[in-house]
Amino acid sequence: MLESAEVGHSVSKASYARREPRLREALLNAQFDLMQARKGPVLMIITGVEGGGRSETANKLTEWMDPRHIHVTAFGTRSCEELARPPAWRYWRALPPKGGIGVFLNAWYTEMLDARVRGKLSARDLEFYLQETRLFERMLVDEGFALLKFWIHLSKPALRERLEEFDQHTRARRALFKIDTKRARMYQTLRPLWEEMLRETSTADAPWIVVEGQDDHYRNLTVGTVLLDTMKRVISDTPTGPRRTISPGPAPSIVDNVKLLRSLDLTQRIPEADYPKEIAKWQSRLAELTQVKRFRDHSLVLAFEGADAAGKGGAIRRVTGALDARQYVTVPTAAPTDAEKLFPYLWRFWLRVPPRGGITIFDRTWYGRVLVERVEGLCSEFDWRRAYDEINQFEEQVVEDGAIVCKFWLQVSKSEQYRRFKAREKTPFKRFKITAEDWRNRSKWDAYQQAVADMVDQTSSELAPWTLVEAEDKYFARVKILKTIVRRLTEALD
Amino acid sequence: MLESAEVGHSVSKASYARREPRLREALLNAQFDLMQARKGPVLMIITGVEGGGRSETANKLTEWMDPRHIHVTAFGTRSCEELARPPAWRYWRALPPKGGIGVFLNAWYTEMLDARVRGKLSARDLEFYLQETRLFERMLVDEGFALLKFWIHLSKPALRERLEEFDQHTRARRALFKIDTKRARMYQTLRPLWEEMLRETSTADAPWIVVEGQDDHYRNLTVGTVLLDTMKRVISDTPTGPRRTISPGPAPSIVDNVKLLRSLDLTQRIPEADYPKEIAKWQSRLAELTQVKRFRDHSLVLAFEGADAAGKGGAIRRVTGALDARQYVTVPTAAPTDAEKLFPYLWRFWLRVPPRGGITIFDRTWYGRVLVERVEGLCSEFDWRRAYDEINQFEEQVVEDGAIVCKFWLQVSKSEQYRRFKAREKTPFKRFKITAEDWRNRSKWDAYQQAVADMVDQTSSELAPWTLVEAEDKYFARVKILKTIVRRLTEALD
Repeated sequence: MLESAEVGHSVSKASYARREPRLREALLNAQFDLMQARKGPVLMIITGVEGGGRSETANKLTEWMDPRHIHVTAFGTRSCEELARPPAWRYWRALPPKGGIGVFLNAWYTEMLDARVRGKLSARDLEFYLQETRLFERMLVDEGFALLKFWIHLSKPALRERLEEFDQHTRARRALFKIDTKRARMYQTLRPLWEEMLRETSTADAPWIVVEGQDDHYRNLTVGTVLLDTMKRVISDTPTGPRRTISPGPAPSIVDNVKLLRSLDLTQRIPEADYPKEIAKWQSRLAELTQVKRFRDHSLVLAFEGADAAGKGGAIRRVTGALDARQYVTVPTAAPTDAEKLFPYLWRFWLRVPPRGGITIFDRTWYGRVLVERVEGLCSEFDWRRAYDEINQFEEQVVEDGAIVCKFWLQVSKSEQYRRFKAREKTPFKRFKITAEDWRNRSKWDAYQQAVADMVDQTSSELAPWTLVEAEDKYFARVKILKTIVRRLTEALD
Repeated sequence: MLESAEVGHSVSKASYARREPRLREALLNAQFDLMQARKGPVLMIITGVEGGGRSETANKLTEWMDPRHIHVTAFGTRSCEELARPPAWRYWRALPPKGGIGVFLNAWYTEMLDARVRGKLSARDLEFYLQETRLFERMLVDEGFALLKFWIHLSKPALRERLEEFDQHTRARRALFKIDTKRARMYQTLRPLWEEMLRETSTADAPWIVVEGQDDHYRNLTVGTVLLDTMKRVISDTPTGPRRTISPGPAPSIVDNVKLLRSLDLTQRIPEADYPKEIAKWQSRLAELTQVKRFRDHSLVLAFEGADAAGKGGAIRRVTGALDARQYVTVPTAAPTDAEKLFPYLWRFWLRVPPRGGITIFDRTWYGRVLVERVEGLCSEFDWRRAYDEINQFEEQVVEDGAIVCKFWLQVSKSEQYRRFKAREKTPFKRFKITAEDWRNRSKWDAYQQAVADMVDQTSSELAPWTLVEAEDKYFARVKILKTIVRRLTEALD
C-alpha cells in the first residue's frame, strides 16, 4: 500500500501560495458548520514513518483552524495513571465530542507496533489486536464518528536524506524535531509490519490514507483537502435508517500530478532479436520450478488485469507455454452470468482456487469489482469500498494456505491502445477482439486510471503484491511477467 | 449465554399439534415468496451440544419445506479435495444462491472448537479465527445474506439422560443417532469454550440464538418460528442506501412460557433474626479480601441493575459498609446529560473504570442502552442490537486488564414492587424516591422483563457473568450479593 507514496509527490511554492488560503478559509467555515450542527465528531489519526512530518501536519491544522474545537493529543509512553487501567482507557478519555475535531498522534497503532518490535507481542498477538482495533473503530463509526487515518510515509532514500539533514543540526534543534533516530534506522525491519498493519486495518468504515511526507506543501494540502471533504460529507449527512460510515476516500489525486501509474517508464523495450532467447530462458526456469517436489506444498495463482488490448492474452500464452497442461487451468472472466449473480461476487473465484500443486491463471479477476463495476456504476459505492478489504481477506486466506499470488497490471498509453485497436480492426482474424464496448470503455480512460491507482494502493501488500507491467512493448511485458513469477517462486520454494 | 437454555423449555403435545400445521404452511408460503423475489439467501448454521438434536432439526425443516430450495450440508472431516485447498473453500462451495435456504450443520464453529480441543490451536489462535469468522459473516450479510446461527443446547443433566437412553439402544440404532459420545462426555471441558465462542461471534449482523434442545417440540417450533420471522423480514426488505443486516432477534419467547427470570424462586428469605450475623460475616470476609496485597493487581467492578424499588441502594450500602472509603467510588447513573450525549454511550463508563487496586460500584450501568433506551425507544433497534457485542468487548478489555466484574440483576415480583411503591409514598423521608416516572415504567413491566432476559442471554459469560438475585426479601438479596462478590474475589485471588 506504500508504493504510491514513494514516487516523489510535490506541490510548487507558487501553487501552494495560491491554494493554501482558499483551503484554509474553507476549513474554517466547515469547522464552524460542524460545530453548529453538533455533527460528527471527526477523529483524525496521524501516524507513519519517523521524520515524515506527523506533528508538523497536526500543527498546521491547528494553525489553520479554530484551536478551541480541534484538539491534538500525542500518545507516547503511558503515564502511571494510564498504566493502572486498561490500554484503551487513555484513548477513550481523549475522544472529541460531537461537533469537534480530534487529532490523535500515533495512537494505538504505534503502541502495537512498538510492542511487536520489542518482542512483547507475538505475530499472532499482533494480528489479534489489529482485529480488535477494527471492532473499536467500527464502534466509533457506528456512533457517528468520521474516522480519518493518515499514514505519513517516506521512501527509504527520502528518510535517509531527512536523517542526514537532521545530523547536521545542533542538539537543541534536533530536540525540536523529535525524530526517534533509532526507530528511523529500523526502516527495513519495520516496513513489512507497516504493510501488514495497513492491510489488516484498512476497512470500508475507516480506510487508511497513505500520504507521502517528503514535501510539506503536498502533505499539508493533501491532509487538509481530505479533512475538508470529509467534514462536508459529515455536515450534509442526514442519516436514514441505521447510521452508516461517512467513509473517506483514498487520497485525492487532485493535489499534484504525479501518480504511480504515470511514473512508469513505458519506453522500456526488448529488441526483437534478443526476445526469443530471453523468453525461452525464463520459460524454462518456470517449467523447472513448477516441477520440483516442494511445489506440491504450494499453489500458484496468477491474476491478470489491464486495459483492453494491453496484451494480457499474449502474456498468458507465454506463461502457459512453459507449463504442463495437467497442472494448470486458465479462467477467462467475463461479466457474471445470471446464475453467478445469485452468489457473492467472490464466489466464482473462490471455486477456482487451485489445489496444492496446481496453478490457476485468471484472465481478468475479482478486481472487476473495484474496476469495471466501480467505474460503470454496476455496484454501489458502499459495495466497492468494502471490496478492498474483502479482497485482502480472500487473498490472505489463500496465501496462508500456501498459495503464491502474483497480480499483474499491464499498463499501455492511451495512444498505443488506439494503434492496437486500429490494427485489430484491419486484421481479419483479430477483428472479433474489438467491439463497440472497447471504444466506449476507452472514453472513460481517466476514471479507469484512477480506479487502478486506488486498487493498487489498497490491495498491494507483501503477501500478494501487484506488479505494474510496462506493456507498451509486448516483448518487454512478457519477459517481465515471467521473471516476476520465477522470482516469487524461487523465494517461496527456498 | 447458555443459562436460559437450561431451564427445561417444553411445548405440550396438544399445543404442538395445533401450532405445527400453521407454522408449516407459513414456512412454505414464505419459501415460495423468497424464491420468486430472489431475495436473501437465508443461511442457517445449526450447531451445538452433541445429542441436542441438530440433524433432527435440519431434517424437520426439509420435511416441512420444499426440499428443492433448502439444502442441508453436514461438515465433518475434510475430504482429500478439501484438504488440498484453503479451509474456507468448502463453505464457499456450499453457499446457497439468492432465493434459496442453506442449512450448514456445524460448519466452521465445530471445526475451530475441535482444533482447539485437540491442541492444534492455541487460545490466541482461536481468538484470532473467531475474529476472522466475524469478518467472513459480515461480508455475507453485506452481500445480502440473512444469517441465522442456532446453538442447540442441553444442560448437563439433560445430556446425561440422553446418553443413558442412548446406551440402552442396539448398536444399529446408535449409529442412526450419530452421537459422538466421546465429545458428549467432555461437556465440562467444552463449556467455557462454547461460552467464549458464542460471546466473540454474537454480533449485531449475526447474533447467536441459543435454543434448548431437550424437548423436540419446543426446539422445532422455536427454530421454525425464527426462520419464518427472518424470511418475512427478508422478503419485505427494500434496501435503501448501503444494504444492511436483516438481523434476527434473540429467540422468541412466544414458543413456551418458561423463562429464566420466571424460574427464579422468589420465596427465598433469610429470617430477620439470622440476618445481622449473616451479613456481618460476609462483610468481614469482603473487607479482608480487598485488603490483601494480591488485590493490588486487580480491580473490582460492581454493576447493579434492577427494577425500581428492587433494593439496589440498600444492597450497595451493605457492600460499601465493608469497604475502605479511600478505595471505592460509587457512580450513580442517571439519564446522560447534554454534555455526555456528545460522546459514545460507553464513554462515561469507560472514564470511571477503576485503577488496579480500586473498586467502582455502578448504580445502574451501561446496560441502560439495552434496557431503558431499548424499551423507551431512545435509540434505534440497530443501536441496541449492536450494543450487546460492544458491551461484551468493553467488559472483556476490562477483565483482561485484571478487573473482576460482578453484575447483579435484582428481581422482584410486580406485586412486591407495588407494595414498596405504596410504602414509599407513605414514608415522608422516602417520598422523594417515588415519581410519576416510576409508575409509568411499571406499565411497561413485560417489555422490561423481555429486555432483561435478552440482556442476560447476550452478555452473561464466564468472564463477566450476571448474577440473578431473588430480591423479594431484602435480607436474602443482600447476603447473596455479598456472598457472590466474596466467591468471585476468592477465585480470582487464589
